[in-house]
Amino acid sequence: MNFSYELDELIDLLVPRKVIGHTSFSISYIESLTKTKQRGISFLGNPKYKKDVATSQASVILLPMGLDLTPKENQCFLLFDNPSLALGKLCRDIEGKNCHHPDVGTHPEAIIDATVSIGQNVSIGPHVIIESNATIADNVIIMAGCYIGHGVKIGNNSVLYPSVKVMDFCEIGSRVTLFSGVVIGSDGFGYETMDGTHEKIPQIGNVVIEDDVDVGTNTTIDRARFSHTKVGKGTKIDNLVQIGHNVIIGNGCLIAAQTGIAGSTTIGNHVVIGGQVGIAGHINIPDEVMIAGKSSVANYKPKMGKILRGNPTMPINDANLFYVLRSRIPNLFDRVLKLEESLRELLSK
Amino acid sequence: MNFSYELDELIDLLVPRKVIGHTSFSISYIESLTKTKQRGISFLGNPKYKKDVATSQASVILLPMGLDLTPKENQCFLLFDNPSLALGKLCRDIEGKNCHHPDVGTHPEAIIDATVSIGQNVSIGPHVIIESNATIADNVIIMAGCYIGHGVKIGNNSVLYPSVKVMDFCEIGSRVTLFSGVVIGSDGFGYETMDGTHEKIPQIGNVVIEDDVDVGTNTTIDRARFSHTKVGKGTKIDNLVQIGHNVIIGNGCLIAAQTGIAGSTTIGNHVVIGGQVGIAGHINIPDEVMIAGKSSVANYKPKMGKILRGNPTMPINDANLFYVLRSRIPNLFDRVLKLEESLRELLSK
Amino acid sequence: MNFSYELDELIDLLVPRKVIGHTSFSISYIESLTKTKQRGISFLGNPKYKKDVATSQASVILLPMGLDLTPKENQCFLLFDNPSLALGKLCRDIEGKNCHHPDVGTHPEAIIDATVSIGQNVSIGPHVIIESNATIADNVIIMAGCYIGHGVKIGNNSVLYPSVKVMDFCEIGSRVTLFSGVVIGSDGFGYETMDGTHEKIPQIGNVVIEDDVDVGTNTTIDRARFSHTKVGKGTKIDNLVQIGHNVIIGNGCLIAAQTGIAGSTTIGNHVVIGGQVGIAGHINIPDEVMIAGKSSVANYKPKMGKILRGNPTMPINDANLFYVLRSRIPNLFDRVLKLEESLRELLSK
Repeated sequence: MNFSYELDELIDLLVPRKVIGHTSFSISYIESLTKTKQRGISFLGNPKYKKDVATSQASVILLPMGLDLTPKENQCFLLFDNPSLALGKLCRDIEGKNCHHPDVGTHPEAIIDATVSIGQNVSIGPHVIIESNATIADNVIIMAGCYIGHGVKIGNNSVLYPSVKVMDFCEIGSRVTLFSGVVIGSDGFGYETMDGTHEKIPQIGNVVIEDDVDVGTNTTIDRARFSHTKVGKGTKIDNLVQIGHNVIIGNGCLIAAQTGIAGSTTIGNHVVIGGQVGIAGHINIPDEVMIAGKSSVANYKPKMGKILRGNPTMPINDANLFYVLRSRIPNLFDRVLKLEESLRELLSK
Repeated sequence: MNFSYELDELIDLLVPRKVIGHTSFSISYIESLTKTKQRGISFLGNPKYKKDVATSQASVILLPMGLDLTPKENQCFLLFDNPSLALGKLCRDIEGKNCHHPDVGTHPEAIIDATVSIGQNVSIGPHVIIESNATIADNVIIMAGCYIGHGVKIGNNSVLYPSVKVMDFCEIGSRVTLFSGVVIGSDGFGYETMDGTHEKIPQIGNVVIEDDVDVGTNTTIDRARFSHTKVGKGTKIDNLVQIGHNVIIGNGCLIAAQTGIAGSTTIGNHVVIGGQVGIAGHINIPDEVMIAGKSSVANYKPKMGKILRGNPTMPINDANLFYVLRSRIPNLFDRVLKLEESLRELLSK
Repeated sequence: MNFSYELDELIDLLVPRKVIGHTSFSISYIESLTKTKQRGISFLGNPKYKKDVATSQASVILLPMGLDLTPKENQCFLLFDNPSLALGKLCRDIEGKNCHHPDVGTHPEAIIDATVSIGQNVSIGPHVIIESNATIADNVIIMAGCYIGHGVKIGNNSVLYPSVKVMDFCEIGSRVTLFSGVVIGSDGFGYETMDGTHEKIPQIGNVVIEDDVDVGTNTTIDRARFSHTKVGKGTKIDNLVQIGHNVIIGNGCLIAAQTGIAGSTTIGNHVVIGGQVGIAGHINIPDEVMIAGKSSVANYKPKMGKILRGNPTMPINDANLFYVLRSRIPNLFDRVLKLEESLRELLSK
C-alpha cells in the first residue's frame, strides 16, 4: 500500500508522549529496524531488538518511554507508552486510505433467492449465491464467489472474503471476519461401521460463530451431528485449522494455523493454542490453558497445570526438561554400561 | 434444523424393543445427556456416560437393552439393540425433512461445453463450469461454483458441494461425496533438481476415486506422475487431508483430518489413520493397520504389528510404555548419578 | 491421458544412448516396473528397485547406462545417462498432446475493471474477477473463478488454476504457477491483547512471489503486517502449506505439504523442508539446511549442522540415535533397577 506522511502529520496522528530530534521530513514505508533506511519508519516492539535501534538508519523510530537512547542526525524518535499500539494506529490510518470497500448494493451477477432478508448498507459481490430464507444484517460485506446456504444468518458488520462457503442453517454473529476459502458447516466426519462398511451418520446440527470472531483462510469448521459446533465471542482462528463436529470453543481464544480439534471437545475461555497442535476428541480444556505449538493433547488433568507442551503433552516444565535430557540419553546408556562393568568387576574380585 | 416429533410418531419411526414410562409429549431438539432439558431427546451411545442418564432432564432417552434404569416422572426411555443406530435413523428423518435438494436441471448461469454428456435427473448449480468431453452420470448433484475439467467422469448419485474442483481426466465413482473446496487432480509435487534449479516433472496421470468414497472439505488429492492416484471403494477421508501423487489407498479406510500421505505410498484395505498423521512416500501399509493420531510413519515392518503410534511410529504398546516412562527419565538420571556416587564411595573405601 | 507411441517414434523422441533388443511394437501406458505388462513402458529411477527389472513384463524399460541386464524376448531396453529425465521428456510430450490450453482472450462471463492493464495473448476464464488497477502481463492464464484484487501485478507466462485468490496489492512474478484454492495475501494473524480482548493489528503489507515459483493447492500465504511476505525465485511449495506474515523465503527452496512457517521467520536459499514441519516465528534458517518431515524447529544454531530432525529438532545423527535408543529405554530402567538391587545387596553384606 502506498502512503506518505510528513513528520508533523505523523505527530498529529499518533500524539507521542515525547519527540526527540524533531527535524522535517516525510516517511513513505515501514520496515523492521535493521532494514529501514531514509524516509522509512520503524519501531521497537520487542525489547530483544533494542540493540538494533542504535544502528537503524530509519528516519523515524517509535520507541517505548524510558529508553535512554539518542537519535542520530536526521533521525527522529517518537516515544510512547506502547509503540506497537502507535504503529497499529498508523497502519490503520494507511489501511483506511488504501482499502477498497466494495460498493454497497447487490452486484447484478449475484444470485439471491427472493426469500432472503437483506439489511441496510449491505455489499454483495459478483457470483455470490444466497439460498432461501437466509438473513443478512446491516453493513455486511460478502465478496465475490461466496456461497450462503439455506436459512443462514449473518450478523451486522461481518465481512466474508471471496469464496467463503457457509452451509445451510449456520449462524454467523456480528463483526465476524471469514477469510477466503473458509468453509463453515460441512458435515462432520461421523460413520457407524457395520461389517467393514462405514455408514454415514447424518449431521443435522449447525455451526454457531459468535460475535467478533475471525476465521483464517481455508479453515474448516464442521457442523454438529446434532445441536451446535460453537466458536465463542472474540475468538481468533488462524489459517488451515480444522474444528470437528460438536466442538465448543469459549470466548477470547487464540488458535494458530494448522491446528486440529477433534469432535465433541470443549475448549474454555481465553485458551491459547499454538500452530499444528492436535487435540483429541471428547476432552475438556479449561479456561486460560496455553498449549505450545506442535503439541498433541490426548487428555487434560488439572495436575498438568495451565501450560502444556509435547506429544503427548506434559506440563511445560516437564516437557522442557525432557527435551534437554533427550540429547543426554545416549550418554546415560554409556554411564549405565560403565556402572554394570564396574559392578561386575567388583563382584568378581 | 427445526423439527418436532410426538412421542407416538417417534415410536412408529424408530420401533424400539421396549418403551418404559410412556407419557404423552413432543420433542424438538437433540442434545447430549447433560444438556438436554424438557422437550429434548438424548441417547446413551458410549457406556462411559451411563452415570449421566440418572441425572439427565431429557424428555426422551434412547438406551441400550439390558440397562437397569428407571425413568423419572415425565420421562420416557426407549430401548434398542443399538441406540446410536436409532438416533441415526431419527437424524436421517430430520435431515430428509430439512434438506434442500438443488433443483434438477442445469442452472442458466452454468457453463457446460457442448461435448459434455449428462445423464438423467442431474442437478447443476450456478457458475459451474464443465469442460469438453466430461461425462456426468444419472442423479449427480454439482453445486454452485464447481469446476469439472476436460474428460472428467462422474458416476451416478455423486454429490459435489460448492466450489469443488476436479481437474482434467480424473474419474469419480458412484455415490461419491466431495465436500466444498476439495481439489482432485492438481499436479503432484515432483521436480528434478539440476544445478540447484527445480525442473518440473510432468504429471500426466490422473486420480481415480472409486464408489462410495467421501472426501472432506479443502482436502487435496494430487494426480499421478503417470497412471493413477487411487482411493478405494468405501474409503472416507476427512478435511484438509493431503494425498500425494501415485498414492494407492485401499477399500474401506478411514483417514482423519489433516493427515498427509506422501507420493507413491500404498495403503491396504480397512486401514484406520488418525488425525495429523504423516506417512512417508514409497512405503506399504498393509490391511487393517491402525495408526494413532499425530503419528509419523517412516516405514512399516510386519513385526510392528497392526496398531502403531509415535513419531516415528512404534508398536502401540511400546509407544504407550515410552510415553509413561518419558516423565520418569529425569528421575532415572538422578538414580544413575546416585549409583555412580555410591559406587565411587564404595571403591574409595 | 491417452497416447500411443511406436518404438521407433519413442527412440526418435528420447534419443537413448543404447537400444537393446529392438523389436517392433507400440506402447500406450506408463507404469511402475512390477505393474507394467504388454504394450506398457516402465523405467528404473531408483536403484533400489533394480531387482524388479528382471521380472518386469514391460514391453519397454528405460534404464541407466552400465546396468548389466538382458531384455526378455519381446522386450526392449533403452539406456540413458538419466532414465528419469528421459521419462520426463516422454511425459512432457504426452502432456503437450493432451493438455487443453484455455482459449486466448477474456471470457464474456469474466468481470474486469476498466482500469486493469492486460498484456498480449492472455487467457481469462469465466467468472474471473479482476479489480481496479491490476496489471496482467503477456501470456498469463487465469482460469475459471479466480479473484484478482486491486493493484495486483501478475508477471508474464504465469498460470492461475481455478479458484485462486490473490488479494489487494500482491505481486506475482513471471512463470509462476498457483494451483487451485491458493490464497495469496489474506491478513496475517496479528492481534494486540488488551484486557483479554484481541484487537486486530492492521496488515498493510503485501505478498511478493518471485519468478518461477509454484504454490500448491489450498496453500495460504499471508500478507505482511507491513512491507512484504516474500517467496524467492524458483522456490516450489506443495499443498496445504501455511506461510505466515512477514516470512521471507529464499530462492530455490522446496517445501513439502502441510508445513507451516510462523510469522517473521527468514528461510535462506535452497532450503529443503519435509512435510508437516512446523517452524517457529522470528527465527532464521540459513542456506541449504534440510529439515526432515514432521520436525518442529523452535530455533536454529550453527552447531546444529545442516540436517535437522525431531520435535524439537536435533542434528540428524542425534535424532536418529535418539529414535533408536527410545525403544531400549524400558530396558534401561530395568538395568538401573538391577544395578540398585545389586548395590544394595553388596552394601548390606
